[in-house]
Amino acid sequence: MNKLLQKPRKVYVSRTIEFNAAHRLFNPLWSEQKNLDVYGKCCNKNGHGHNYLLEITLSGIVDQNSGFLFDLKELKSILEKEITGRFDHKHLNHDVVELQECVPTTEVLAVLIWDILERRMNTTNNQELVLHEVNIYETGKNSVRYLGE
Amino acid sequence: MNKLLQKPRKVYVSRTIEFNAAHRLFNPLWSEQKNLDVYGKCCNKNGHGHNYLLEITLSGIVDQNSGFLFDLKELKSILEKEITGRFDHKHLNHDVVELQECVPTTEVLAVLIWDILERRMNTTNNQELVLHEVNIYETGKNSVRYLGE
Amino acid sequence: MNKLLQKPRKVYVSRTIEFNAAHRLFNPLWSEQKNLDVYGKCCNKNGHGHNYLLEITLSGIVDQNSGFLFDLKELKSILEKEITGRFDHKHLNHDVVELQECVPTTEVLAVLIWDILERRMNTTNNQELVLHEVNIYETGKNSVRYLGE
Amino acid sequence: MNKLLQKPRKVYVSRTIEFNAAHRLFNPLWSEQKNLDVYGKCCNKNGHGHNYLLEITLSGIVDQNSGFLFDLKELKSILEKEITGRFDHKHLNHDVVELQECVPTTEVLAVLIWDILERRMNTTNNQELVLHEVNIYETGKNSVRYLGE
Amino acid sequence: MNKLLQKPRKVYVSRTIEFNAAHRLFNPLWSEQKNLDVYGKCCNKNGHGHNYLLEITLSGIVDQNSGFLFDLKELKSILEKEITGRFDHKHLNHDVVELQECVPTTEVLAVLIWDILERRMNTTNNQELVLHEVNIYETGKNSVRYLGE
Amino acid sequence: MNKLLQKPRKVYVSRTIEFNAAHRLFNPLWSEQKNLDVYGKCCNKNGHGHNYLLEITLSGIVDQNSGFLFDLKELKSILEKEITGRFDHKHLNHDVVELQECVPTTEVLAVLIWDILERRMNTTNNQELVLHEVNIYETGKNSVRYLGE
Repeated sequence: MNKLLQKPRKVYVSRTIEFNAAHRLFNPLWSEQKNLDVYGKCCNKNGHGHNYLLEITLSGIVDQNSGFLFDLKELKSILEKEITGRFDHKHLNHDVVELQECVPTTEVLAVLIWDILERRMNTTNNQELVLHEVNIYETGKNSVRYLGE
Repeated sequence: MNKLLQKPRKVYVSRTIEFNAAHRLFNPLWSEQKNLDVYGKCCNKNGHGHNYLLEITLSGIVDQNSGFLFDLKELKSILEKEITGRFDHKHLNHDVVELQECVPTTEVLAVLIWDILERRMNTTNNQELVLHEVNIYETGKNSVRYLGE
Repeated sequence: MNKLLQKPRKVYVSRTIEFNAAHRLFNPLWSEQKNLDVYGKCCNKNGHGHNYLLEITLSGIVDQNSGFLFDLKELKSILEKEITGRFDHKHLNHDVVELQECVPTTEVLAVLIWDILERRMNTTNNQELVLHEVNIYETGKNSVRYLGE
Repeated sequence: MNKLLQKPRKVYVSRTIEFNAAHRLFNPLWSEQKNLDVYGKCCNKNGHGHNYLLEITLSGIVDQNSGFLFDLKELKSILEKEITGRFDHKHLNHDVVELQECVPTTEVLAVLIWDILERRMNTTNNQELVLHEVNIYETGKNSVRYLGE
Repeated sequence: MNKLLQKPRKVYVSRTIEFNAAHRLFNPLWSEQKNLDVYGKCCNKNGHGHNYLLEITLSGIVDQNSGFLFDLKELKSILEKEITGRFDHKHLNHDVVELQECVPTTEVLAVLIWDILERRMNTTNNQELVLHEVNIYETGKNSVRYLGE
Repeated sequence: MNKLLQKPRKVYVSRTIEFNAAHRLFNPLWSEQKNLDVYGKCCNKNGHGHNYLLEITLSGIVDQNSGFLFDLKELKSILEKEITGRFDHKHLNHDVVELQECVPTTEVLAVLIWDILERRMNTTNNQELVLHEVNIYETGKNSVRYLGE
């Protein structure tokens, strides 16, 4: 089967999920005024929120038998546990252990999600499969990509 | 000018704005368990959030001279004061006076925004112009429309 | 709670789900040529397919206690059983009992989904809640709405 | 065939097309200053432009044999001649005969397209089929609907 | 003309087209149960379908005279013949010669489209122009990119 | 603060803005016929227009104190002055000094915007921050990326 895959083919497979979360941008080491200067209305005391759109990209050689890069059911279960369970319908400042002592900017979120997923991917059986990119849209206009560099 | 408008033409003009807010669905008159049964993960204690997309529709007869239904600058200034100023980068439960003693569901938000904008529209000089519809998308999958009925 | 709801408020609540299905437009009572004339490449013998986007709209009076029009968990369970279970990852011509002896155009699909959901909605406890509209996008460019008329 | 259609079913069928055009909002009966007050940067002397998204909705009873509301090939040919041919890659102020002596606002465009398509629809053989709505998005944030009222 | 192009400028030009197709994920060398384990509901016997969105990216030096990377009319004709003609309104398992003895996953499709277009691009007169990337969205949530590696 | 940032993290931050402009593709050094052959309906004498969507990507190391790559207020002010002020509601052929003696194709626009923003970025205090990519969508189907190569 899959004669097109007799030659190894490296693909990039992306999957998008959404999570809805509150956050507040506030650095407790700074004065109120400095926080306001840097974060503007994002430092509103009671927080605000977003529909975060997260695009995960994996890369590797397509499996010759299945025609898949990875087992979709396994990926789905990883994302539900590591992403949805951790971030969805949560307040990022209060409910996420890994974000304690962090300002939950989109940049920081992208880095955290990379760290979580990269560690988790290393426990799969597929040695070839690597996490390639984490891309988060905070709104339709702002996004941050992190590639592990 | 505008010979196409010599006959009165009733149009529906829609304008979309976004606001980013946190909220928590929780009815203090109910037990924790009842809240969990009804609101599920939306009653998370610290709240969560959304990029709300709000589409306002006005209707009326197009002005024969300008070819506009309404003065865009006036509408923009109304929406900035009444919507962005009130809801954007806020926590709906804590920061919005009109939502005190309310569960800030999308249904309640649609009704509140209608009440605010309808009152405001009545103060414009254009007697013909009416608020026709308020449509809010909480996510790309859920929306609520209210037409003042 | 919810003083904004002391006056009855009629809202329209929409929820969107996607299903991925194959279909073929072919009327067995017609000649091959007549089918080709009417359906063009949509009558390709082996079928083709779409990511159907289905938007269901319910209407009724918002519940004063919950601030909801309907119980989201009940709606979710109805849509999964009646829509996803019946249409998702199926061939509409071969796998859907209700479409036997039908040409599965988007128009026919909209009518069928209305009939299924309207019957089902009548079995809920909420007497006020009615199905208002079924809207299906076959592609981003083509859609059909049915309101039960 | 199509037992679901033995009872007459009234549907609303929408089709979306795009056209890319330049325009300038300027009323020659007004002073430069009055134009600037009303139209702001939209009265820039050399014009500006948009990707207009036009959604046409027809309504009527679904044909029992085809399961279609209308002949797609006929609609496609109407839209190419009447819309694409007239507006696409044109300057609305200079290239469209029907817009001479008009300010080409989105409101005026919606009205003109209704007038053109309604006249054209009356020449089809399907007596039941009517133009229901013309909806134009000038940008993702601004749209105008006209229903012939 | 085009003094900005006196220095050679390498750009990436992307064009998106859609095709609507049915497919079934099934490996005939495997048992029914193994197919079900790997492909889940995607191995439904009669197939299902998608609106595939295909984004082709070419790269090269912008032509100093035209300001274009490539002749749009030639690209359009290539895509209509090679992509639309081959995949649109087809059943990928039955109607596409090149997919015989293949499981038509999105990964395999991306690889096949790369092979087809890269061969075809080599026959254009523009020696500098290369196919850079093939990106297919099977749904709004799943996509596969192939860059020829 | 921001223990996740103790290790330097290189991110790519993108921001999207829209501008609405008219343009005409026409090379005055060519005959009318040659222009028509190369540019087709894009060389319509009076021009046409688009809603251009511009995505700017910056890259660099996230600041350990703020959790930001850059000061959002500074970026916003740069984009308003350099992009919105220069291109929005303008005719690219007549109103943009830098495009004189250029054919304003999307390729040329991407190159020009890179040149403008790269020069401007060099004047910020952040030595690490670099312009990574300029990506312009002329329509939802056509886009050009330039990375300064």
